Amino acid sequence: MKKYTVIEDISNLSEIIKDAVLLKMDPFEHSVLGKNKTLAMLFFNASLRTRLSTEKAAKNLGMNVMVLNVNDAWNLEFEDGTVMNANSSEHIKEAAQVISQYADIIAVRAFPGLSDKQKDESEQVLNSFIKYASVPIVNMESATAHPLQALADAITISELTEKAKPKVVLSWAPHPRALPQAVANSFVEMMQKLDVEFSITHPEGYELNPNITKNTPINYNQKEALKDADFVYVKNWSNYKDYGKVLNQDPNWMMTQDKLGTAKFMHCLPVRRNVVVEDAVLDGENSIVIEQANNRTYAAQIVLKKILDNL
Amino acid sequence: MKKYTVIEDISNLSEIIKDAVLLKMDPFEHSVLGKNKTLAMLFFNASLRTRLSTEKAAKNLGMNVMVLNVNDAWNLEFEDGTVMNANSSEHIKEAAQVISQYADIIAVRAFPGLSDKQKDESEQVLNSFIKYASVPIVNMESATAHPLQALADAITISELTEKAKPKVVLSWAPHPRALPQAVANSFVEMMQKLDVEFSITHPEGYELNPNITKNTPINYNQKEALKDADFVYVKNWSNYKDYGKVLNQDPNWMMTQDKLGTAKFMHCLPVRRNVVVEDAVLDGENSIVIEQANNRTYAAQIVLKKILDNL
Amino acid sequence: MKKYTVIEDISNLSEIIKDAVLLKMDPFEHSVLGKNKTLAMLFFNASLRTRLSTEKAAKNLGMNVMVLNVNDAWNLEFEDGTVMNANSSEHIKEAAQVISQYADIIAVRAFPGLSDKQKDESEQVLNSFIKYASVPIVNMESATAHPLQALADAITISELTEKAKPKVVLSWAPHPRALPQAVANSFVEMMQKLDVEFSITHPEGYELNPNITKNTPINYNQKEALKDADFVYVKNWSNYKDYGKVLNQDPNWMMTQDKLGTAKFMHCLPVRRNVVVEDAVLDGENSIVIEQANNRTYAAQIVLKKILDNL
Repeated sequence: MKKYTVIEDISNLSEIIKDAVLLKMDPFEHSVLGKNKTLAMLFFNASLRTRLSTEKAAKNLGMNVMVLNVNDAWNLEFEDGTVMNANSSEHIKEAAQVISQYADIIAVRAFPGLSDKQKDESEQVLNSFIKYASVPIVNMESATAHPLQALADAITISELTEKAKPKVVLSWAPHPRALPQAVANSFVEMMQKLDVEFSITHPEGYELNPNITKNTPINYNQKEALKDADFVYVKNWSNYKDYGKVLNQDPNWMMTQDKLGTAKFMHCLPVRRNVVVEDAVLDGENSIVIEQANNRTYAAQIVLKKILDNL
Repeated sequence: MKKYTVIEDISNLSEIIKDAVLLKMDPFEHSVLGKNKTLAMLFFNASLRTRLSTEKAAKNLGMNVMVLNVNDAWNLEFEDGTVMNANSSEHIKEAAQVISQYADIIAVRAFPGLSDKQKDESEQVLNSFIKYASVPIVNMESATAHPLQALADAITISELTEKAKPKVVLSWAPHPRALPQAVANSFVEMMQKLDVEFSITHPEGYELNPNITKNTPINYNQKEALKDADFVYVKNWSNYKDYGKVLNQDPNWMMTQDKLGTAKFMHCLPVRRNVVVEDAVLDGENSIVIEQANNRTYAAQIVLKKILDNL
Repeated sequence: MKKYTVIEDISNLSEIIKDAVLLKMDPFEHSVLGKNKTLAMLFFNASLRTRLSTEKAAKNLGMNVMVLNVNDAWNLEFEDGTVMNANSSEHIKEAAQVISQYADIIAVRAFPGLSDKQKDESEQVLNSFIKYASVPIVNMESATAHPLQALADAITISELTEKAKPKVVLSWAPHPRALPQAVANSFVEMMQKLDVEFSITHPEGYELNPNITKNTPINYNQKEALKDADFVYVKNWSNYKDYGKVLNQDPNWMMTQDKLGTAKFMHCLPVRRNVVVEDAVLDGENSIVIEQANNRTYAAQIVLKKILDNL
């Protein structure tokens, strides 16, 4: 692996999952691999799980870790040819090249603005790092993708499924604020690669990018969609067509124990209780959100390991 | 030791103090004990000494350390059953369980709001971590207690006393802002366990929680109280009865060289010069505040060591 | 070396440069030297390169690193004798002594206010740490000096020069904001120690402190000054006489490929493209700003190594 910024960077998913589960059994087995190697973690946005699990993963491999909240430094410029006499102090061209000299791998978190679809889809921040850095880049959630989360989700489903080909449903949920589509996008792309029966349910008009969902079945009837599901992944996203808008907060789309039945409940966290999902689900036996979060460490660790193997 | 959140978690104080002094003589003796163990330090409030000394202590034991200013992430919800459609993005139930998977010990700093006594005394943040985390919790100053400071203070008195049973006086001091009672509370509880002659002096009406002071002598006459003292611990706290109020800023309560006499001067720091204590005291020979601060490292280190011993 | 806060702290520049180049060839050769030693990095101001390169340098030597954004803690008091009843919570006397007990070396970044020349020139923050700390201090850019940058610059010139005595020109550039003179000052002092033909060009009235420039030739005609230059160091600084003012933003002083000719282009970064220097220069073959930034690691590492050698 030379970078991990999109799901497509995984060439052999089943092998990666198997290797991640092995790492989980013995997290410190490769603690010499990262000796004298440095991971720079750059945050343009807030983080809890991603921050801690990725740092943990790198240290499990013996790496040094440097964490920088980029906003604590100064604004970076991403446009070409700008006369930089306003608010940005440094161009990404310099920043990415310079940081590449201090780190062996750079991990980046940069959320979308959710107002300019074209700009968000250009993945300006992430792709600028890919373009100008001279070291591998890891995506810690970009404008349109969260591949480390999706890998943790795939590991979790693989570990906990009781069937060869489980039924997995992605179910939209209401939320008071406009959230990115990144988690949903990467989960869809990951499920398309996994041996599962996958479908999506959301209110009419809340379709994700059709270039991502492709021919994945979509059902506007949540109840029908959830029937006989083995895993239900609940997630809000803001509207994609009327880009970044919150057009629906219908509480009927909240996940309940009644709707869930015996399926396993998944969510990437953070999750708003009694808005996205009722307490009874999160506090019940079918919730596997804590296991998902645990697998964030091993998703990050297998990715860092595969990159280190190729350095 | 399974956690260190209140003074009562220390079962054998004299042994702990002795072990801390041994660690101080050879801080790196146990630098293999913490190998592949991680301390997550979570700050809901600012820190200088606690941050640096606890990180130092953990690294002296060979631990990995991850520091997170929680406010850089997002607001956590601590109430049960809330419909989370307002300002908090994640419930402590998830956060504590998740972080427990990334860390072997969690240390938490969370100050009181000083407006709602009952809420502060419920120690909601600290106790929520204790309730929901699956790893040991260390208190880096909570709403009502600062046990790592009190342990450092006990170590300092033990090291520097010239008498078998020294006279120790806690003396209130004026301060322009409303400060917590946490340091004073833990110092009182610690002195009650140590073999000292202990009393408190403060203006009438500034009584600490009587459930904490119990039968410790209180004298409203500072001059009388300080007579023949060996150690004088100076500290401001806001009013406990008229909760969180600053009802007294009388400069006559400031500690002076004249009042101190030959006693050793103690303070947890940060300290406001010429408000809490005059320059002459801090710059004089009887101040032991720097030694106290040094012992913060060994207080934290012995606590982390005792917890690691039990993992 | 006992500290590195001013250029004068380097006694043998050519040896230091040679040793830095050796470190660069084998950065981990001395990775045992810093074992159980701690570097505390204290930032009063934002940082990207200095933060990451100094942390990298310390870890290359096997040191532990603790990074503290001081502003995340509280305001420090630097004046003597103050009645601290206003905005500052802790005096530098206590802070510096206390942190000295948690760290073996303290590195400090503290920019000038650019309104009170005398105060800035007193280097109150840096000099207070030097005065009250009991461990060596490293300057990560103070009010009037940036010696780690200048050392990286000297290493870069030494590595890339094709002549025994190259011609080096420091050329002022326009900038929308008031910037410190620190980088220019230290570069001037460093060039005065290096075996180069050194001169400065800037608009009339933009003279740096004459106690620093001494008898270094100054030419107000940029074109003339740049003639036959081997290295051109471009940098903005705010006015020194009319202290901290931006009196000139003349775009004719921007560096262009045409003006530069075959000389190597240097800048400390961050740099504002098409304000300080045009894209063609930074994107061209003669720019060595990335090499300069790379040498920040080895400048910091040789300084830390020399200090550790003396601990």
